[in-house]
Amino acid sequence: MNHNLTLAQLADRLGADLRLAPGADAELVPTGLNTLQDAGPTEVSFLASANYRRFLANTAAGAVLVTDAEADACPVSALVVANPYHAFALATALYDRTPIASPGVHASATVHPDAVVHPQASIAAGAVVEAHAQVGAGAVVGPNTVVGEGSTVGARTRLYANVTIYHGCAIGSDCIVHSHAVIGADGFGFAPGGGQWTKIHQLGGVEIGDQVEVGACTCIDRGALGNTVIGRGVKIDNQVQIAHNVQIGDYSAIAACSAVAGSATIGKHCTIAGGVGVVGHVSVADKTHVTAMTLVTKSIDKAGSYSSGTPFSDSRSWRRSAVRFAQLDEMARRLRDLEKQLAGTAVGSGESD
Amino acid sequence: MNHNLTLAQLADRLGADLRLAPGADAELVPTGLNTLQDAGPTEVSFLASANYRRFLANTAAGAVLVTDAEADACPVSALVVANPYHAFALATALYDRTPIASPGVHASATVHPDAVVHPQASIAAGAVVEAHAQVGAGAVVGPNTVVGEGSTVGARTRLYANVTIYHGCAIGSDCIVHSHAVIGADGFGFAPGGGQWTKIHQLGGVEIGDQVEVGACTCIDRGALGNTVIGRGVKIDNQVQIAHNVQIGDYSAIAACSAVAGSATIGKHCTIAGGVGVVGHVSVADKTHVTAMTLVTKSIDKAGSYSSGTPFSDSRSWRRSAVRFAQLDEMARRLRDLEKQLAGTAVGSGESD
Amino acid sequence: MNHNLTLAQLADRLGADLRLAPGADAELVPTGLNTLQDAGPTEVSFLASANYRRFLANTAAGAVLVTDAEADACPVSALVVANPYHAFALATALYDRTPIASPGVHASATVHPDAVVHPQASIAAGAVVEAHAQVGAGAVVGPNTVVGEGSTVGARTRLYANVTIYHGCAIGSDCIVHSHAVIGADGFGFAPGGGQWTKIHQLGGVEIGDQVEVGACTCIDRGALGNTVIGRGVKIDNQVQIAHNVQIGDYSAIAACSAVAGSATIGKHCTIAGGVGVVGHVSVADKTHVTAMTLVTKSIDKAGSYSSGTPFSDSRSWRRSAVRFAQLDEMARRLRDLEKQLAGTAVGSGESD
Repeated sequence: MNHNLTLAQLADRLGADLRLAPGADAELVPTGLNTLQDAGPTEVSFLASANYRRFLANTAAGAVLVTDAEADACPVSALVVANPYHAFALATALYDRTPIASPGVHASATVHPDAVVHPQASIAAGAVVEAHAQVGAGAVVGPNTVVGEGSTVGARTRLYANVTIYHGCAIGSDCIVHSHAVIGADGFGFAPGGGQWTKIHQLGGVEIGDQVEVGACTCIDRGALGNTVIGRGVKIDNQVQIAHNVQIGDYSAIAACSAVAGSATIGKHCTIAGGVGVVGHVSVADKTHVTAMTLVTKSIDKAGSYSSGTPFSDSRSWRRSAVRFAQLDEMARRLRDLEKQLAGTAVGSGESD
Repeated sequence: MNHNLTLAQLADRLGADLRLAPGADAELVPTGLNTLQDAGPTEVSFLASANYRRFLANTAAGAVLVTDAEADACPVSALVVANPYHAFALATALYDRTPIASPGVHASATVHPDAVVHPQASIAAGAVVEAHAQVGAGAVVGPNTVVGEGSTVGARTRLYANVTIYHGCAIGSDCIVHSHAVIGADGFGFAPGGGQWTKIHQLGGVEIGDQVEVGACTCIDRGALGNTVIGRGVKIDNQVQIAHNVQIGDYSAIAACSAVAGSATIGKHCTIAGGVGVVGHVSVADKTHVTAMTLVTKSIDKAGSYSSGTPFSDSRSWRRSAVRFAQLDEMARRLRDLEKQLAGTAVGSGESD
Repeated sequence: MNHNLTLAQLADRLGADLRLAPGADAELVPTGLNTLQDAGPTEVSFLASANYRRFLANTAAGAVLVTDAEADACPVSALVVANPYHAFALATALYDRTPIASPGVHASATVHPDAVVHPQASIAAGAVVEAHAQVGAGAVVGPNTVVGEGSTVGARTRLYANVTIYHGCAIGSDCIVHSHAVIGADGFGFAPGGGQWTKIHQLGGVEIGDQVEVGACTCIDRGALGNTVIGRGVKIDNQVQIAHNVQIGDYSAIAACSAVAGSATIGKHCTIAGGVGVVGHVSVADKTHVTAMTLVTKSIDKAGSYSSGTPFSDSRSWRRSAVRFAQLDEMARRLRDLEKQLAGTAVGSGESD
């Protein structure tokens, strides 16, 4: 954030129609963004969901991003846009205070003489860039981050502190990789025999498209043969596990703590909630949604929402249901028996089996 | 551990009443702690649970931490205390061999000239402390750990090796942060539109109270607007995911591999077992307990124990129940039909619907 | 990969019987390995499962690893072996391009004068080896990896970049530890009292046998008293959590995102699928298999396959079943009532309760 945009200028940047409240000043310089409940008179807020409409009437914000339909109900200056949530997202970029890295290689970094680092890239303290690696223009390699032999980091991609990129991986442009993400560790492959495991060396790599975000402590393994592939614009949260030879289609999003097992294919525009498991070798159709902590055990051929698990409740009630779960097959057979008996008893009623 | 406490001195430190066994020596210097089963004559043990009482009679320990009620059954010297488990915990501090870090900045560390590092703090090899960061008295920044711009590390807080603290985060005093924990990575926020995701830059930070422990590979994301807040004395195990704007109340404990989604609020003195998921925007009452691998999908208003899931069994039996789970609604309707039929058949019996 | 093995030499290395196709040349130098579908004429493939037999007839591979029984159906040169999957695993070692680390200590590494590093070990840029640590012949300590005080790294063991080994841990020979694994962080132990938690300092260590592989971001905690023990030849995938004082028997394999709670014992030759939880203090018999996302809540005394959870389906169908799950106990009682009523109604039919 290195600007002093006025409300009028902000409206201009966001393509918003500024409707000033009586007595309000288009030359106000907003100091930041906040929720309708918490924003003060120098802050800009937004109304992105009907759930929050009740906070609009009493907001103390300096201005609010709203749709045309909501503008009349806005007690303060309105920034009228077609999609307030999207406009809010654009505004966050303007008020972001994430430190900007300066180009150049820090004295304590180790860059192999055979690596190719763009003069406009930034290599931070303690970072290591190995032989034949390439770091593009405007890319940032954070403190103590390691870029392995022959790997490439696209233009304007930011690797935060303590990221590890193994050898032979390609990261696109305009990506963000958070701390302690691991790109290109070995997939989990072993041949059993004689009561032991023989390692299957993982000969493939990882390909990550442009505009991908990878969360903290997320692991994307290299392929066994061929590459693990993450499509363009994919967003992956923290502590996600992507196994070898998985393919994730463009613009899909995967929430924290999910895991996709080997050779599974996730379509485009999918949204996978947190804690989901996808077993190996299945494929999931484009635009599929999977709810939290579901285990996907078969391919999903048709877009839709998918779930597994049981509802939660107090442990005592839950335990009663859980005990019965183990008796379900017996219950089903007893139910069938009753139906048969009753069909026999009630012959005259016209019931049949 | 840099002492040679005798049994008598140990009793004094722990506030224990030393009742020597016949022939035992109060000047014995215990070499460490061990379980009742494994302790030898120079080791001190403890009886903290009725489950282990059966091991007391045959213990070879030099002395045992016991309650007054158990002291008579102790065949060796007794260290009588009100709460043996708590006394054992205090004793572990005395026999801990975790290396102590020396104050000062290692030659290979990178401390920005605008950072403020207390002369009694320790900055280890390869550590990076960025501009305007502050590190308090007695704090330890481990090898290759990174403290981001403007972040603060309280007095006596220990960050082990390879920790990452992003910019603008505040860690209290007397905390322990284990290796590869990530404090302050971006929350997972994107506005959908046009089949793509627009990043919502995460403008908030993270605030961690005093006496907090954060496990290895645990991630605590920065807030979207406002901070993610971890209360005083909270204990978080390994590989836990705390999303943006979560609030965890004082003295709650969260076991490994659990995840709390965005804007959820966990009360004080809660205990969350391993592998639990808490969905976003819910709140959990003080003193709530959640059992392992439960998914909390709604707010919990009342203290108690909560669960979800099914019991485990051999896969063949489980599969039979699982198949029936998918038929449950049909089974319920058939059961209702039978009840209706039977009510009809048995009119004379006085049954009614 | 620094060889130019011909097909004949490869057969020799793998103990395979080379049966050349008409016109094929034993002096061909294969360039690598690939699947039956994707391999080209300079690549070697393998047929390890009946599922892939349909791809054999049309493969364009230069040669295929097959059993004697499949050799006749192979349209190209056959490398006949008893176990093609095992032979493939051996072959991957020959075509692996993982960079080889040169012996010696990088100028930017920090090795404590009291550490013992074998002259044939490799200590990479930014690595830190603390006092009294030992690193064996041919071992590799990757970039920015930290080996704690008094810990040992066996011969030929490779620690990739950004690994953390705490103090007092022993890693065997011929192990692989992937990036951001954490060996020896504190187990999660606290004594409750007065509404607070008193830390139980974790006085034990970690012992890891020979030929163990530890995945990226996996955590193996140190013991509270005594050690956490990982047996010989154990393979652990990414993001696995092994708590304090767990014991894992020789040659067991644990897939990603699983967690084993404190003091649990896993037998030998077990296979634990992904996302599994094992509660504390239980023991699991040798050769047990646990399916994905199961929670093991009791000891398993007998080898076999074990499961929990529910099948996944579209969310609407799932919701219907889930609602009924909470009514299961009531349904079971209603079923019982019907059986009793029917036994009463149908006296003449000879049914009895």
